[in-house]
Amino acid sequence: MTQYSKPLPLKNVTVTDPFWHTEQELVRTAVIPFQWNALNDNVPGAAPSYCMHNFKAAAAQNARKDTEGKQFVPPAYTYRGFESKPDDPAHPDPDKFYGFVFQDTDFSKWIEAVGYSLTQHPDAELEKTADAAIDIVCAAQLDNGYLDTYYILNGMDRAFHNLRWHHELYCLGHLIEGAIAYYEGTGKDKLLKAAERFADYVGEYFGPNPGQCKGYPGHEIAEMALARLASLTGEKKYLDLAKFFVDERGTEPNYFRYEGERDKRDGYSDTDWSFDYPYAQAHKPVREQDEAVGHAVRAGYLYSGMAAVAKLSDDPSLAKACETLWRNIVDKKLYITGGIGGTVHGEAFSYNYDLPNDAAYSESCAAISLAFFARRMLELAPRAEYADVMELALYNTTLAGMALDGKSFFYVNPLEVYPEACHKDNRVWHVKPVRQKWFGCACCPPNIARIVESVQEYAYTVADDASTLFVHLYMGGVAKAVLNGAEVTLDVTANLPWRGDGTMAVRLDAPAEFALALRLPGWAGRVDAAAAAVVATGEKDGRVTREVRDGYLYLSGEWRDGDEVAFGFAMPVRMLKANPMVREDVGKVAFVRGPVTFCAEGADNGDNLHLLHADVDAILGDPDAVRVVPFEFHAGAEGIDEQGQGEVDHVTRDMVRLEVPAWREPVPAGASAESPAFAPLYAEYRPAKREPVTATLIPYFAWANRGENEMTVFLND
Amino acid sequence: MTQYSKPLPLKNVTVTDPFWHTEQELVRTAVIPFQWNALNDNVPGAAPSYCMHNFKAAAAQNARKDTEGKQFVPPAYTYRGFESKPDDPAHPDPDKFYGFVFQDTDFSKWIEAVGYSLTQHPDAELEKTADAAIDIVCAAQLDNGYLDTYYILNGMDRAFHNLRWHHELYCLGHLIEGAIAYYEGTGKDKLLKAAERFADYVGEYFGPNPGQCKGYPGHEIAEMALARLASLTGEKKYLDLAKFFVDERGTEPNYFRYEGERDKRDGYSDTDWSFDYPYAQAHKPVREQDEAVGHAVRAGYLYSGMAAVAKLSDDPSLAKACETLWRNIVDKKLYITGGIGGTVHGEAFSYNYDLPNDAAYSESCAAISLAFFARRMLELAPRAEYADVMELALYNTTLAGMALDGKSFFYVNPLEVYPEACHKDNRVWHVKPVRQKWFGCACCPPNIARIVESVQEYAYTVADDASTLFVHLYMGGVAKAVLNGAEVTLDVTANLPWRGDGTMAVRLDAPAEFALALRLPGWAGRVDAAAAAVVATGEKDGRVTREVRDGYLYLSGEWRDGDEVAFGFAMPVRMLKANPMVREDVGKVAFVRGPVTFCAEGADNGDNLHLLHADVDAILGDPDAVRVVPFEFHAGAEGIDEQGQGEVDHVTRDMVRLEVPAWREPVPAGASAESPAFAPLYAEYRPAKREPVTATLIPYFAWANRGENEMTVFLND
Repeated sequence: MTQYSKPLPLKNVTVTDPFWHTEQELVRTAVIPFQWNALNDNVPGAAPSYCMHNFKAAAAQNARKDTEGKQFVPPAYTYRGFESKPDDPAHPDPDKFYGFVFQDTDFSKWIEAVGYSLTQHPDAELEKTADAAIDIVCAAQLDNGYLDTYYILNGMDRAFHNLRWHHELYCLGHLIEGAIAYYEGTGKDKLLKAAERFADYVGEYFGPNPGQCKGYPGHEIAEMALARLASLTGEKKYLDLAKFFVDERGTEPNYFRYEGERDKRDGYSDTDWSFDYPYAQAHKPVREQDEAVGHAVRAGYLYSGMAAVAKLSDDPSLAKACETLWRNIVDKKLYITGGIGGTVHGEAFSYNYDLPNDAAYSESCAAISLAFFARRMLELAPRAEYADVMELALYNTTLAGMALDGKSFFYVNPLEVYPEACHKDNRVWHVKPVRQKWFGCACCPPNIARIVESVQEYAYTVADDASTLFVHLYMGGVAKAVLNGAEVTLDVTANLPWRGDGTMAVRLDAPAEFALALRLPGWAGRVDAAAAAVVATGEKDGRVTREVRDGYLYLSGEWRDGDEVAFGFAMPVRMLKANPMVREDVGKVAFVRGPVTFCAEGADNGDNLHLLHADVDAILGDPDAVRVVPFEFHAGAEGIDEQGQGEVDHVTRDMVRLEVPAWREPVPAGASAESPAFAPLYAEYRPAKREPVTATLIPYFAWANRGENEMTVFLND
Repeated sequence: MTQYSKPLPLKNVTVTDPFWHTEQELVRTAVIPFQWNALNDNVPGAAPSYCMHNFKAAAAQNARKDTEGKQFVPPAYTYRGFESKPDDPAHPDPDKFYGFVFQDTDFSKWIEAVGYSLTQHPDAELEKTADAAIDIVCAAQLDNGYLDTYYILNGMDRAFHNLRWHHELYCLGHLIEGAIAYYEGTGKDKLLKAAERFADYVGEYFGPNPGQCKGYPGHEIAEMALARLASLTGEKKYLDLAKFFVDERGTEPNYFRYEGERDKRDGYSDTDWSFDYPYAQAHKPVREQDEAVGHAVRAGYLYSGMAAVAKLSDDPSLAKACETLWRNIVDKKLYITGGIGGTVHGEAFSYNYDLPNDAAYSESCAAISLAFFARRMLELAPRAEYADVMELALYNTTLAGMALDGKSFFYVNPLEVYPEACHKDNRVWHVKPVRQKWFGCACCPPNIARIVESVQEYAYTVADDASTLFVHLYMGGVAKAVLNGAEVTLDVTANLPWRGDGTMAVRLDAPAEFALALRLPGWAGRVDAAAAAVVATGEKDGRVTREVRDGYLYLSGEWRDGDEVAFGFAMPVRMLKANPMVREDVGKVAFVRGPVTFCAEGADNGDNLHLLHADVDAILGDPDAVRVVPFEFHAGAEGIDEQGQGEVDHVTRDMVRLEVPAWREPVPAGASAESPAFAPLYAEYRPAKREPVTATLIPYFAWANRGENEMTVFLND
């Protein structure tokens, strides 16, 4: 049985959850203002974005065109690099485009975070700033609706001619997402109308009809954005366009091959004309794809778009393809931190079961794209596994991408870090032992901002038939839904991720029939035990009955004002091992509790974490051997490097740490990497000497907040 | 006490050793003819070398110059790439240089192997071919002695202007090595004279005097070659030049920086003007270098040259630098297979204790360079460790570089191979699971050829005071030396690497006083036990006395014709573990016996070798638990890929395998990389299920002779 659902409107959910409210405030007060400065090239020491510069330049060009009329000569296309920089950084040419080909999206991601933030925290000043920015952006739009400053400024004659690399449709997708968020946050539709006009232009340019271009995005996101636009506006044309992009992808004759051959023939060498089709999931039609491959963010966005289109167009073959790809990711390509994309080469999924710890890529954006995908899989069919994975991605790799002061970020999220290797070993050049202030290719920080500011959208969906409210995440706050015509308010307290208990108070004007479907978290033990940890007052007098289906506890029947659902999920420490096919994790264990994956840092455990072993026998022998200790985590690191990379303000956060029985193999005397060695490199095998210690594990998302040190998620067994 | 020694002349040693004779015959009958075809672009399917083409083109240019006289206009320098290829491969321009900048060395390495081979196996036909080739090469030499066809054909005006990358002095070094070998094999000195003339030209161009160039080789080898030339000719000027190159290297102002800045200023961009000084060991003066860094082959050649110069110039500060670098390599940067250079980035030494197994570089040439270095350290001071490491490099990585049919080669010698990763994972793109036929950059195959054909040079050295013959390697054959004026013949039988026993019969015209110093192999147990395994007949009547010093057993006194030394070194199976600071090897063991390191292959043990564990408890409990099984190894693999890479003829070789008590963690049902998964990716930890098995280990040098399969040197403990 298929039960489609969709998220509650953002304004209908208020987040008061201590954990997520803190994160949202961090983004609101630290990240969003920083981003705005970054967009306007006002961050001392950081590479300029040129994002607003480009919109202003395009707007000025439009104005010139209006003034000059037929005298106006539009620029003839000139390729100036995938990233172009001014010859003299102190004096950028006000008429020229600078930055990456996708630089417009810096604005779109910012406005998206702003829109979400305004749903929770109205801010007239911020809204004013945003409105002014939107005026500039809209002034950059061409009369025909086209809006990508890269081609507007570099020459429109080659627009849509390099879909493989030039990200125009990616810009469209982000613009739509940002415009919708701002519309939802403020009710203002100026940017939304601009996005629709660009989408309309694209919808005429691309499509199945003769004369229309048969291309599709080189970097996906337009698919999911157009589906969202279709949902918001009710306009089928946007769904048709999304579906065209999804259906056309990877079909033969391959559009990207055609495009590359044309470029070569025409003498265009904007980029190498050859193309790695799996990199962009364009190697075969999406319904034939059974392994998640290629650039992980592209893949996550595509699969999200596929799931969205599958639901909106009620397409079982597409839903099946999504499920196949989901299974492949979850069963063979998912880090225990919720990260995906194991290899730096192409920032991509590696082969099945290849999940390197120290060389992991696990881009922050990729974990976020996995949460997008999971939410849309939930919308297709409520199954607890989707929510489990979504929660894992949100609480771990997504948050690990940002320092606890909101001021520095990871692009790459390794599961094991040995700082000396990061400094000396080119094989892990992509792995940074401390977070960086900002990135020229600024995808991860704003992506973190937009998902954190909209995290409530991942907590609830309401069934399309309005019969059921699904609770996917337990998040303190207030949610309003209309269920079977009744206005229902849910007042939730929760203590995630540190405790599994909480309550939901139901407020109603009058008794009403509906179902609340509560996810039974995978981390809470067997489904029946988890279900037993939930009690609804309405069950006592038989008004509400329970049924467990696909990991959800459906509490159905007549609900009355003041009804309460109490939940108290067990949150045992779980010592996990990876499937033996994961070569990197043989002989290793990891510790998770609730949705949180833990890790060991040098700051707590000393260096040489590769010699730290969990005392697995002791832990197997005594389920309480691992102590769960609530504590106040002190972040803070000063002057890590000359660029200030790795600095973290002194902030404290309530957390839980694990104290794990463990042992250490001693470092041979004198065998430090620096000292003159006298311990032989190879010697007769003797069982390792065991020095008993207690390993201290902290939440993975909190690592690298105390300066540069070693870290590992997996411990030796 | 310092005791200098030098190798016996190649012609004075005859190799009849079953093991090495087989290897030498393989090189003589398979590799040398193949190389000759390769030099002449006569290998179907292989990229042409253009080596002899270039010499012929240069010879023709010389002839034109002679004909045209003052009308002759020499080519003005034109950079045509680090490797240049004809526009039309079917019609190379007969006047142009093709191939890598160091392509001349293809000839030099070939003639070197030929020269060595002729010392063991006179071959009039081969000698005729070689003489003809030498005529061509010598015809290419300029009147002034310069001989590098790259600049002769591309323009001499920039000769010696890009020492960082253009390998002219590397060509000189190889030319000297080849010329000396051919002179030693045949007594013919035409090529030797040509090499001397080139060396003389270089010796005038470079040097400490005003007006002389202060540069030194970008890729070292000239240092060791010039030292050898000095030894052969007695000409101090060649030692002075070698010493200049050694002493000048890495001093300030840095010559390579000067050169790069000059290139930049002059607008030359043959290569990037910047330079990675440690890559070429030019980051500081060699006497201040205390860590082996940079390109491993360059390093090995430099250190060999340093050791040779240290001995010939009796320079303790240089000898001390060699010892410091040696210690760093042996204590922190040496693979258990005798390989060096852990990282593909720069084909270089990685940081201390970083010895990746699956991503190892461990170039064949680097292991060979380590043997060069070790032999020269032995010449400086006879210490058993030098010979132990030399032997390890020779029997393992050096030989692993060549298939058992002599027809395919490894450049990279990993310690762990998972073929799927080689095919799919860019992080190990450099690791090939099967050997390749030939390489465009053909350094490894000819390097293997030249060291195998001269392996007897590593077996013996004779003290400079002629008092002592050092036996470093136990190799069946006949060695002739003059000791204290007496002509001594040693008739050796040996059974290495499979058994540690053998005999040495001494033949003399008359009784003579001298010492035989036998290395006590590190693998044979404690020094006293190893010494006790040697008995000399002369000891019975007190003519010969014994003393152990630095791992050598000195048998000194009066020797008579018919005296015999019997040795019977124990050759236990040793289960070794790496220093715990080697992160990659934690929880792992490797098996070695005698000089041979063993490995497990999928062909014998099934796939998923990462789930194979040595039963270390059983092995510790019973020293005989590991069975040593002599057997006939059957090599052979057909049609591995479309280029025939990995094909091996069906040949058999007598070897020893180890049968090791082991256990396997079973592969979860259905969790093969291909099948749809139903085993979860992460699950509650349970101790691994142990399926008892016997692991079969074969010598590392014999791996990848039965088609593509998994391999690992280290097993889990």
